[in-house]
Parts: sequence; structure tokens; C-alpha cells
Amino acid sequence: MSHVRGCMVIKPWGWGIWEHLQRGLDGEIKARGHENAYFPVLIPLSYLQKEADHVEGFAKETAVVTHHRLEEKDGRIVPAAPLSEPLVVRPTSETIIGASMAEWITSYRDLPLLLNQWANVVRWELRPRILLRTTEFLWQEGHTAHATAEEALAESLDIHRMYEDFVRDWLAMPVIAGEKPPSERFPGAEQSFSIEAMMQDGKALQAGTSHFLGQNFARAEDIGFVDADGRRKLANTTSWGASTRLIGGMVMTHADDDGMVVPPRVAPHQVVVVPVLRGGDADAEVLAYAEKVAGAIGGASDSDGNPVRVHLDRRQHRSADKRWQWTKRGAPVLVEVGPRDLADGVLTYRQRLDVDSVLRSDVSAFAAGVGEILGDLQSALLAQARFRLEAGIVRDLRTLDEVRAHFEGGGSGFVLGKWCGSPKCEQALKSLAVTIRVLPQTLTADGERCLIDGRPATTDAVWAMAY
Amino acid sequence: MSHVRGCMVIKPWGWGIWEHLQRGLDGEIKARGHENAYFPVLIPLSYLQKEADHVEGFAKETAVVTHHRLEEKDGRIVPAAPLSEPLVVRPTSETIIGASMAEWITSYRDLPLLLNQWANVVRWELRPRILLRTTEFLWQEGHTAHATAEEALAESLDIHRMYEDFVRDWLAMPVIAGEKPPSERFPGAEQSFSIEAMMQDGKALQAGTSHFLGQNFARAEDIGFVDADGRRKLANTTSWGASTRLIGGMVMTHADDDGMVVPPRVAPHQVVVVPVLRGGDADAEVLAYAEKVAGAIGGASDSDGNPVRVHLDRRQHRSADKRWQWTKRGAPVLVEVGPRDLADGVLTYRQRLDVDSVLRSDVSAFAAGVGEILGDLQSALLAQARFRLEAGIVRDLRTLDEVRAHFEGGGSGFVLGKWCGSPKCEQALKSLAVTIRVLPQTLTADGERCLIDGRPATTDAVWAMAY
Repeated sequence: MSHVRGCMVIKPWGWGIWEHLQRGLDGEIKARGHENAYFPVLIPLSYLQKEADHVEGFAKETAVVTHHRLEEKDGRIVPAAPLSEPLVVRPTSETIIGASMAEWITSYRDLPLLLNQWANVVRWELRPRILLRTTEFLWQEGHTAHATAEEALAESLDIHRMYEDFVRDWLAMPVIAGEKPPSERFPGAEQSFSIEAMMQDGKALQAGTSHFLGQNFARAEDIGFVDADGRRKLANTTSWGASTRLIGGMVMTHADDDGMVVPPRVAPHQVVVVPVLRGGDADAEVLAYAEKVAGAIGGASDSDGNPVRVHLDRRQHRSADKRWQWTKRGAPVLVEVGPRDLADGVLTYRQRLDVDSVLRSDVSAFAAGVGEILGDLQSALLAQARFRLEAGIVRDLRTLDEVRAHFEGGGSGFVLGKWCGSPKCEQALKSLAVTIRVLPQTLTADGERCLIDGRPATTDAVWAMAY
Repeated sequence: MSHVRGCMVIKPWGWGIWEHLQRGLDGEIKARGHENAYFPVLIPLSYLQKEADHVEGFAKETAVVTHHRLEEKDGRIVPAAPLSEPLVVRPTSETIIGASMAEWITSYRDLPLLLNQWANVVRWELRPRILLRTTEFLWQEGHTAHATAEEALAESLDIHRMYEDFVRDWLAMPVIAGEKPPSERFPGAEQSFSIEAMMQDGKALQAGTSHFLGQNFARAEDIGFVDADGRRKLANTTSWGASTRLIGGMVMTHADDDGMVVPPRVAPHQVVVVPVLRGGDADAEVLAYAEKVAGAIGGASDSDGNPVRVHLDRRQHRSADKRWQWTKRGAPVLVEVGPRDLADGVLTYRQRLDVDSVLRSDVSAFAAGVGEILGDLQSALLAQARFRLEAGIVRDLRTLDEVRAHFEGGGSGFVLGKWCGSPKCEQALKSLAVTIRVLPQTLTADGERCLIDGRPATTDAVWAMAY
């Protein structure tokens, strides 16, 4: 956070994580046939008003552009040249993409239209929180149009699964996936699907959502097509997004007392080589050796078969300071080479999950094994996070009183129970900031009872506090 | 252009070009040791005011955010919750990055600090023009801080050369590179360097600029460091940028009567395979064959050694329509396969510079040779653009009257001459919209005379009309 309330500066290490995350997710999105496009950051007010629920859900806390010039007046610079129609900085692009889809789609042959956009959006946050709820954030927003409701629903479910797989495989974040309860649906959606990660304090973090919009937006934007039978029909649409919040989730999932722990698949540098420089004559030799070591590591493959991303930290800072900095940032593997190592052709290394174990290795043996070390670390992070999630799921509560006692007594985690579907039961624990986060599966559970009021249940539900 | 005055929608084909361009340029920027970071899109008004020339140059036509909420009033949605200090949507990030640099830099050990940002910016354009001058555009902006003026100047010149090489090697755009005359410097810069491409109408397009800022911004933002000698000094900074305007330049450099021509290195699809579908029983077989053909092409390497980017156009539109669409978009190579080709194991193809020549080839022979076809097309586009640039440089004018007669008589192109350095001579042809675009080299030309007033010249200069 800095400079502008609720807006964040993303420094190079954080941005590097985002680049790898983005490239990975972009690959998944494209592999499913979507194409990227780009739409304006400024949206006319009138666009937001087309869909009633949407304006209700988004128009409230929004940055509003009212002028397009500045001028000096009495020594102060003030806004000038008012716009005839104010513009909002996009809080999401549903409306403007919908308007484009209406232009681009003519016949059933143009369907499905599968678009995605990488962009910044602004939602004026009253209680901003670094990386999790920021006034400006970066995200991808997918928008698709289909001939039938079945196809659109299948798309939103496919993307829902994509998010679940992606955060597990890239960020080592296990989640509970499922539908959102009606009260938490995206404004204007028929159904919303979410993946919910559990942070180390037991709170839920919504990490990626996918919405089946039915014909609500198609009706508002007039996204129609002439079908094979010659009749004009309204399309069914979806939208879905994941944001820089994923970085926040990743950080809070894996951080330990020494700072961040970055999964190797998204680490900007998978291995950092720190030469021990003492400001003396030996430095040149040590640096030359460190270059050779970094070269050998960069020539090796990581567990995905890509060249290992290695960084040689040439800075003249003290090596203990550099080691501590890379530990705090969560670089997966830290290699150090000093004057002693030089003669023996060895290096020392440690991996981020066990920074107290300093291992010594022959350089070529290390290069040959570094892919496995990185793969093991990725797996260990997921295993550790899975264990925490499993340990944090509370399955043995049977009544509202028990649930209340659990949270009032300082308990946390995901309370898994049955729900009758009533809003009243959903809101029963709101005074404790506990709500239904997600419905992990819909089941027809004969004889199962709602955790809150004991009436017949229609679905599983997760109650938790949330970020 | 669409929806919002001066803002553009970038459709998937255009966005795909941007993605390849961006990836290529990002690679060049990183290869030079720069790291990407990200800064807020909203900037407090007070930041813009820190550097006097800067506010003069940028603050004028800017989108100003004055409210952070909307509310309903008498049935209309209106801005509410005024901000205590208005924010501008960044027209460039000099000021906010400068403020961060001031925080991040402590000692000479932190220098040079080499940052780059990929972002959207907004400059309220009174006369917007698609891709060339849009209210919102996307760009990279590099910002660096150095211990000495020499280092900072060397950085801005290195980036200047990087832009020249990049647009030549990737976009097949030859340019005239050099310093900008003083009147066209970036607001607050000591020296600005630019690459100027010639469009087919002879007008100049500024395609990438690099600025040596001296200590002007460092002073305004207090970017200081403790040097090795223990004394606090001000840094020297640079900034440089290239934008989506490059796509406009590329389009206008290579377009012909049939539409766009996209250089293979940045083409989203280098080869498009169009199956000739007739809506009959043969379609399934043709489509299966087309898949096999596309697979063989995708298994081949382009002239850079990367897998050929091949796209199979499965749409049920008429194949003549599809062919025309891909021609207009400028896909480098178009392959067609129909029922006749199937039996013989052949395909027909044409390349975009010679769409009337339809060639027939064995599939495996085509796959083996497609890298060369793409490389040749890339080279041919550059050669053609170089020829046009060379043909458009007017070297034989000797007096102001001759230059005036040239442009008044409908002449165009880059008039290359000598200049004495006076603003008066720079502005002498302003009524014809002809100005000095760039100073290709600085020479001490004994006896050379200014093209405009005949006084002793200090430099070469290019007079031209500009976009």
C-alpha cells in the first residue's frame, strides 16, 4: 500500500510472482479455446445502469471521472472541463464487453464467443487490506457467450475446475470448491462458483469465481443471435475472474516465522546464488566462481522441464543480509559460495522449508539434482497446506449452539455441515462474522438435517469467517 | 474506437499482435537487467505538481477522479462522496515511481535501480486517432536511477538503440533514430531521443522515446543516495516508453490494398489453415485432413526456431469468406485444403505479400519449408519498408523556398538537411504542419549551412509532417 489510499505498489519480486502466475493461468485459459482482448478502462455511467442488480452491486464504491482537464486557479491546480456524462474507472468490464459482444455476434456460427481480458480494475475499498482487498487490483476476467444455457453452465463449471486445479498445481493451495449461496452471488448471476482457501488463521479466502449469468446480461445488452432454425434468440453468458488476490492467498497459505515461502513454479528466481564477498582481493575470484555455479544451475531443468530460473546476487551488501533478504522473500533454494568452496568445486545450499539445514554439494551433482529439489519443495508445500486445511475442517458440530460455542470460544476453521437452504440459517451466525462461504456439493440427503435449525437439509455448506 | 470517445477496443487478433510484441520487447528490457514492477493507476494531484515542466506538459488533458461513489438521486445515478484531493488517472508514472525510488534508494549500492512497468495510461485526446493517438493506451515505461549523469545518459542511449533494433527486427519497421529538437523534449527532460518511422503517406510517426532526465526529477522527488565517499548526492534518472502506437505504426508501414500485413514474428497465427467445407458428407473427412495438416505445420519450426503458430479455422463460414478475412487481417501464410487435396496428400498455400500466387505442395515438404517461407516474408517486409523509407528521404533541397515549394506542391517524406539550431528555423514551416522531427546525428560540419536561414549549421535535421 502506498501513495494512494488502498492502492498497492507491486515491487519486482511480487511482480515476478504475478508474471509467472499470469503466464501459467493464461496458458490454461487459452488451452480451453479462449482469446484475449482488451476493452476501455473508462466506462460511461449509462452502461453500468443497464443491468439493475449489477449497478446495485458495483456502482456504489467506484472511482468517478468527472473532468478531463486541470487548470491553475489562484495558484492551485483544480479540475476543469467537466464531462457531459461522468465515466467510471472499470470495477469490472461486464457491461462494456457485453455491448461489444452484442455487436460482434450475428449468427449461431459466431458462438461460442470465448473472450478473456487481463486488466486493472478499481473498486473503492472502505477497508483496504494489502493484496487481499485493494482499491486497484489486477485480474483476468473471462466473458463468454453461448447458444444455450447448458453450454454456458458447463463453461462456468469448467472454469471453476480450472481455478481449482491451477491454484493447487501452481500455488500449492488446496481449496474447497463449490457453489456460492444465493446471497453471495455475483450481482446479476444465476449461479456463482467459487474456490475457498483456508488461511493459517482458519479464515476463508475466496480465490477465484466463475459465474453462470443465464440471459440476464444478454437481455440487458441485447446479445442476440440468429439460430440455425432462423429465429433470433438471446445468448447465455458467463463471466469469471481471478486476481492479484491470489498472491495474497499464496503468501498467507505458506508464510512462516521467517517470512514468505514461494512455490517454485511461480518463484521469479527458483535458485538464488549469493557469493560471499568480503571486500578483499578474493572477491573477484569468488564472483567468477559464483558465475560458473549459476551457469551450471541455469543449464539444468526444473521439475517441469524448463530451465531453472537462477539469479546471481552480485550486490555488495553483506552476504548475511542478502541471505536474510532472500529468506524473507521466500526464494525456494539459496546457494552460497565463498572462498573455501572455490578450491573444492562445491557449494552450500538450503531450501526454504528448512533453512537451518545447510547442505554441501558438488556443483555438478547439485545441478543434476536441483530439479528434484524444486519438485519436492513444490509437493511439500502442497502437502503441508493440505494437512492444515484438513486439520482445520470441523465436522463434528451438530447444532447451532455447538457452532456458536465453537466460534465464541475462539475456534476457527471451516465448519462443514448440512444446510436447509434458508437465508435465515445462512445469516444465523452473522453477529460472529461467520457466514456460509461455499456449498461444496449439492446432495439429496435423505434424513440429513440443517446444522442451524434442524430442518431437512438440501446441501452441504461451509461456515467460516472470511477475508 | 468505441463506447468511450478516444478509447479503443482491441480485438483478439490485434491483442495477439500486442502479446507477441510485448513478449519480445519485455525480453529485450529484461536482458538489459531491468525488473518489472507495478504502480497505482491513480495519482494524487499533488504528485503531478512536484516538477514544474511536468505538470505543464501533462496535467492539462487528464482524466480527473473527483468522487468515489455513485448514488441515486431523483431517479438518476450521480457522483457522490467527493474526494478531499482529486486523483488523476496516470498519464505517465514519473512522479509516483520517483516517489517510490526516493524511498527505495539509500546508498550507492542500491544503484543503478532499473525498473520497468507495463501499464495502461490515459491522456485526454482532443483529436483521437485509432491506435496512434488514443485516450487510453497501453505501454511500457522504463524508469531508472543512476549515480552519475554519464551512466544515465548511456542508459537512455542504450534504450534508444534497443527500440531502433526492436522495431526493425520484430515489426520490420526501419526508422530514423536521433535526438529530438529542444522544443519536442519530454516535459522535464534534459535530452529526448526518438525513433521516427515513415508511414506510406510520407508522414513521420514517433515510435519509441527515451529521455535523459538529469537531476530534474531526482530534485523534485528527492531521489538521493549516500555515495561511497559518504556524501549524499542526487541521482540522475531516465525514462523511456513504447506503446500500442507501435501496432498502428506496423499496420501503416505494411498495409496494402487488401488490408493489413503482419510480420511473422508478431503474427498471432503465422499460418492459418482453412478447410474447404461444403456442408456435405465430405466435410468430416476434410476437417480430419485439415487437422493432420495443421498438426504437421505446428510440429515445424519458424525462422526463430520456435514452433510455428498455426491456427485451424474450423468455423462453418464459407471458405472464400474466411480466406478474405485472414487476408484482410494480414495472416502471413494461408493454407487451404479441400476434398481434392485429401487424396493426393497435398495442400495449397499463398503468402500475404503475393496473394494471387496459389502454390501447391506436398504436406511434409511444406512443413519442412514453412520456416523459410516465414523468414523470407519477414525479410521481404523489412526490405520493402526500407526501400520506401529511402525513397521518401528528400536530400536535394537547399533553401527555405525549395523546402516550402516541396511541401506546398504536395511533396511529402523526410526532408534531410542541416540546421543552425535556432527555434526560429525550427518553426519556419509550421504553417505547413512541417516541423523538425529528429536530429539524426550531431556533426561539426565545417562550412555546412542551415537549410532554412543559411547560417552555419550544427546538426543534421529531418523536417516532416507528423502523426
